[in-house]
Amino acid sequence: MPTVRSPHGEAVALVDHHIHGVVTANLNRAAFELLISESGRPAPAGTSHFDAPVGLALRRWCGPVLGLDPRASPDAYIERRGQLGADAVNRLLLSSAGLELLFVETGHRTDEVASPPEMAALARADAFEVVRIEAVAESLARAIVEIGGDTAGWLSGVQAELEKAALSAVGFKTIVAYRHGFDLPVVRPPRRAVTGALDAWLSGRVGEDRLRLEAPVLIAEVLHQALEIAAAHGLPVQVHAGFGDTDLDLHRADPVVFTPWVRVAASLGVPVVFLHCYPYHRQAGYLAEAYANVYFDVGCILNYAGPSAGRVLAEALELAPFTKLLYSSDAFGLSELAYLGAVQFRRHLAAILDAFVDTGECGRDDAERFARLVGSENARRLYPVDRACRHRPVAAAPAGVPDRW
Amino acid sequence: MPTVRSPHGEAVALVDHHIHGVVTANLNRAAFELLISESGRPAPAGTSHFDAPVGLALRRWCGPVLGLDPRASPDAYIERRGQLGADAVNRLLLSSAGLELLFVETGHRTDEVASPPEMAALARADAFEVVRIEAVAESLARAIVEIGGDTAGWLSGVQAELEKAALSAVGFKTIVAYRHGFDLPVVRPPRRAVTGALDAWLSGRVGEDRLRLEAPVLIAEVLHQALEIAAAHGLPVQVHAGFGDTDLDLHRADPVVFTPWVRVAASLGVPVVFLHCYPYHRQAGYLAEAYANVYFDVGCILNYAGPSAGRVLAEALELAPFTKLLYSSDAFGLSELAYLGAVQFRRHLAAILDAFVDTGECGRDDAERFARLVGSENARRLYPVDRACRHRPVAAAPAGVPDRW
Amino acid sequence: MPTVRSPHGEAVALVDHHIHGVVTANLNRAAFELLISESGRPAPAGTSHFDAPVGLALRRWCGPVLGLDPRASPDAYIERRGQLGADAVNRLLLSSAGLELLFVETGHRTDEVASPPEMAALARADAFEVVRIEAVAESLARAIVEIGGDTAGWLSGVQAELEKAALSAVGFKTIVAYRHGFDLPVVRPPRRAVTGALDAWLSGRVGEDRLRLEAPVLIAEVLHQALEIAAAHGLPVQVHAGFGDTDLDLHRADPVVFTPWVRVAASLGVPVVFLHCYPYHRQAGYLAEAYANVYFDVGCILNYAGPSAGRVLAEALELAPFTKLLYSSDAFGLSELAYLGAVQFRRHLAAILDAFVDTGECGRDDAERFARLVGSENARRLYPVDRACRHRPVAAAPAGVPDRW
Repeated sequence: MPTVRSPHGEAVALVDHHIHGVVTANLNRAAFELLISESGRPAPAGTSHFDAPVGLALRRWCGPVLGLDPRASPDAYIERRGQLGADAVNRLLLSSAGLELLFVETGHRTDEVASPPEMAALARADAFEVVRIEAVAESLARAIVEIGGDTAGWLSGVQAELEKAALSAVGFKTIVAYRHGFDLPVVRPPRRAVTGALDAWLSGRVGEDRLRLEAPVLIAEVLHQALEIAAAHGLPVQVHAGFGDTDLDLHRADPVVFTPWVRVAASLGVPVVFLHCYPYHRQAGYLAEAYANVYFDVGCILNYAGPSAGRVLAEALELAPFTKLLYSSDAFGLSELAYLGAVQFRRHLAAILDAFVDTGECGRDDAERFARLVGSENARRLYPVDRACRHRPVAAAPAGVPDRW
Repeated sequence: MPTVRSPHGEAVALVDHHIHGVVTANLNRAAFELLISESGRPAPAGTSHFDAPVGLALRRWCGPVLGLDPRASPDAYIERRGQLGADAVNRLLLSSAGLELLFVETGHRTDEVASPPEMAALARADAFEVVRIEAVAESLARAIVEIGGDTAGWLSGVQAELEKAALSAVGFKTIVAYRHGFDLPVVRPPRRAVTGALDAWLSGRVGEDRLRLEAPVLIAEVLHQALEIAAAHGLPVQVHAGFGDTDLDLHRADPVVFTPWVRVAASLGVPVVFLHCYPYHRQAGYLAEAYANVYFDVGCILNYAGPSAGRVLAEALELAPFTKLLYSSDAFGLSELAYLGAVQFRRHLAAILDAFVDTGECGRDDAERFARLVGSENARRLYPVDRACRHRPVAAAPAGVPDRW
Repeated sequence: MPTVRSPHGEAVALVDHHIHGVVTANLNRAAFELLISESGRPAPAGTSHFDAPVGLALRRWCGPVLGLDPRASPDAYIERRGQLGADAVNRLLLSSAGLELLFVETGHRTDEVASPPEMAALARADAFEVVRIEAVAESLARAIVEIGGDTAGWLSGVQAELEKAALSAVGFKTIVAYRHGFDLPVVRPPRRAVTGALDAWLSGRVGEDRLRLEAPVLIAEVLHQALEIAAAHGLPVQVHAGFGDTDLDLHRADPVVFTPWVRVAASLGVPVVFLHCYPYHRQAGYLAEAYANVYFDVGCILNYAGPSAGRVLAEALELAPFTKLLYSSDAFGLSELAYLGAVQFRRHLAAILDAFVDTGECGRDDAERFARLVGSENARRLYPVDRACRHRPVAAAPAGVPDRW
């Protein structure tokens, strides 16, 4: 697959600009299946989450890394995983993904998964942190409620925490699509409305440990704060878009609905990076073409679409400049998803660009250049990798890119 | 096409889980053309509804069943149809479709088309009834208005009729997409609002024979009733989604807009089956992945898209589990559409799965299993075919699957 | 590519039913790049608008017309363009596009680009004018404001200007998608609301030269006026839909959101022609199937999608009748885009229809007939080309279709 190789022939190492930690404990089949579906539930009686496109792709590509046949059954796969143990599996799969850099988002089920330094060690590649804005805001709310503190301190506290995070993080991430939807009014809410919503949220909730940031005025205020801080520190803001779990109304996660916020970010000079986007990846491509500050990826749909991932990636490349698409696996929990994401991205990008070359749409030099842009250089140009805190794998040579690429 | 064959080599008989009755009268070209377009009108002057993708596919695949060349002209096709007579044509086409079961929706222009027992006889396959919720509600409204009865009896009457229907039907169907759109408030309306809307609808309309259920609170109330009854009887609820005739605003028929109702149905344990869905079939696939109780088909678009049907079916299979997609023709009026639906589904599903096998995405055993799931087993698992009233073809052996498959 | 040839073998000349004037001045690279992006801005630092699909296609197809290699660099292309001079380039590219008729929309940056007669001369093909409704309304507003005239005259003035335009134009065009979005209330606004909005818009603005028609009631009133005048004169109304520059919220430009207006137009007998439509081209195809008065094209996305244009065109042909799709380049400013649009349309339509023939979906006679319909005959049937004012190229033989087709 020459188009994911450099002019000198070696495969391009990827920047996975949005990944979560992997579970470090062993997993039985039921627990494993929960991590290959957005449903958050077991498959209906008599069925299995393996009987989905992601199940096919996972068996095909991850099985051989663990020494199995590509057609091994789900049970055989889980058994083999158990024999090797989670740590060996995670090291095998993550270090086989051919990653150069990992940007690890740390705001989702943080205590259950590996941290950025741990991810660096497993993948034998440098890791950076992406800070989830809502997690910062909710963590502080819990702290205030726990100690019965003054809720009025929340706003300034969030600002201070985000400022602090901006000194080490490589970017921010927002899940506003989950917490309200992109139809969030962009006008900055008046201070009185913010403090009113804050009181309604936090007053009298001492001892509660689940506090969700859901009031629109609070989300908007925090988002405005984060954009200003991102502007001051040169950080891009990642934005979950498109499909996800059942906590989301899909049509309200269409990135074009976020256009008014894109314009605000543009006025501040802040890049906005839409993540995943399916089935609105064409819309994301349009935004990337029309707005200088918009970037995007198709993230985990390359895993979830399994055999059909190539069509989705091809559509993402219909209108978007080659300078605006990035790579991410959006893997959460399973190192399989980090490895599979890299496999799917490499082989389908190569197929698309090779077809361009074969049908005369462009020369091989251009195709190879686009592969490097999308796989690595766009992310390196966009994110402050020279300033942000870099977690290096300790006591091990970088993984490099396996020969198989 | 081995992937629509069982491991023993024979073709899989299909469950057409959503079909309407066919017209039993002979049809001239003008009447025929009206049944191959969603416009409900003749084509513009100087043009023909045959000059559309569905026209090409119909000529290609149905012509030979009637003894014509695949390239026979529309006039030749209509002439041949007339020579054979509607009954022979219907028997030929329906019994050639390779159907195992038909679920016949009886709520649309019921008096003009064949009933479930008649459809069973024509197709030489067992037929079940799907009851359209709105048709029940409107029929009762007409009965009350005709006799000048008390409108207050409507609500309890609808409940009683749906309860009764649930004893024999294999499922319910709703056309809320046509009558309001999926942005119907999901909160159960207060009784006072319901009776107020009922009075406004029915009072003083003695003698009117066209009563459309259109008030949002009435639609919502009836839908809540139907979901509860479906829960009690283990019935799935079919939901028209996506494209249809000009009675519909397409964007309000995007299935993701119905998500709040999907969650209500989930809480009651009621499966929701989105029908057709185009151009929102990817959205339907997402819902099927994320919600354990969501199923879907791409129905009549496989007919309407003619030569391009394969792309639509492939997109429907991008994200959705293979355990969640069903087959339907959604044929109305023309037995051609029932036959063509089966042809299009079989050949395009086979092409997709064969490509999976050929490119190593899965093994042939998996591909054959998926074909059986999608073509038949998903529907048999989902619907209460063992309890519901079954109409058997009288005095004729089952059609079986023609050798040509 | 036989399917864009007539039965006698010659290539079909195209009707470009929506094109703008080209810039007649020479362009440096920066100015040129601004015309191949919807962003209206230079590409981000370190990147180029050439590194997008449209850049690849432009280099590949336009380079050879100017005597360059298909892989010539952007700098080489711009240099060669400068050597030849804008006039020679425009003549070369426009006369090589194989156009029969051009319908030139004159309402955008009118002073910077060639007029319809100039376009006729450059392309050596007959040109007609399409009048932009909003440009008429804004021009009159400026005139009133300049002379401090009575704002009350605006409404009758717009009507008079549109009536006058209808005598010579081949069609109207509206950019309501840019000025409000398609969710514009369709009920005709009361006169009092119109005069109130008019006063608010124009009073006290003497000397201002930028007046944008943005008040919803004014846009709606003008649109109703235009539809009535179009009805009286037998003119279609073109409607920008889908992607465009940053002046637009994409989801509000989904053509199905305009359905209530489509129904009003249908009641008046006015054809509505949706332009571009991406990524809502499937939605446009649905409207074209369901509504007798709806037509559409995919316009400039065939340029912008470069190597991937075939997929978009194929999707546009999924559901739509072959009698409802039209061809346009939507070129603005660059003759490259007019030429490239024709190349992309011809080669991808040919590929789609050839595949239909090769796989038995239709016969070659049907395929050739569809190519003529879509490329030329649908437009000639729809627009009043026999009545509207025709600008003929002076003193030069028609360009005809180059042998290369």
